[in-house]
Amino acid sequence: MQQITLNVQGMSCGHCVNSIENSVGEVTGVDNVTVVLEQGKVDVVFDENKTSVKEITDVIEEQGYEVV
Amino acid sequence: MQQITLNVQGMSCGHCVNSIENSVGEVTGVDNVTVVLEQGKVDVVFDENKTSVKEITDVIEEQGYEVV
Repeated sequence: MQQITLNVQGMSCGHCVNSIENSVGEVTGVDNVTVVLEQGKVDVVFDENKTSVKEITDVIEEQGYEVV
Repeated sequence: MQQITLNVQGMSCGHCVNSIENSVGEVTGVDNVTVVLEQGKVDVVFDENKTSVKEITDVIEEQGYEVV
C-alpha cells in the first residue's frame, strides 16, 4: 500500500467532496480516499500493484477538477 | 403564472446548480427554474394557484442553501 496527498483545485462544496470520494473510491486498488475541502487536499491510500497516481489523478480531472 | 428572482447564498459549483434546479423543478406548479451561479440568483416561474414563494424557498433551504 502507498499513500499520496494530492493538491486539487476547484473543490468548493460537499457535492464536490462526494463526487471525488465516490469516483476515486471506485478505482480498483484504491483502499481509502479522504477529501479535506478547506485545504484543497485529497488523501488516497492505494495498492501500487493495482493502480497508479496517474490513474487516480485522471479520474479526479475527469470530474472537472485540477490536480496541481 | 408568476416570476420571482431569489437571492441564494451558498451555491458554489455546478453540483449546487443541479441540486437546486432538480429539487425546485420537482415542486408541483413550478414551470421553470434557472440558476445564475455567478450572481447567486435563482429565477423561478410558477403557478401561484399550485405553489407559493414560501414552498419554493423551503425546498431551497432544505438543500442546505440560504435564501436572503
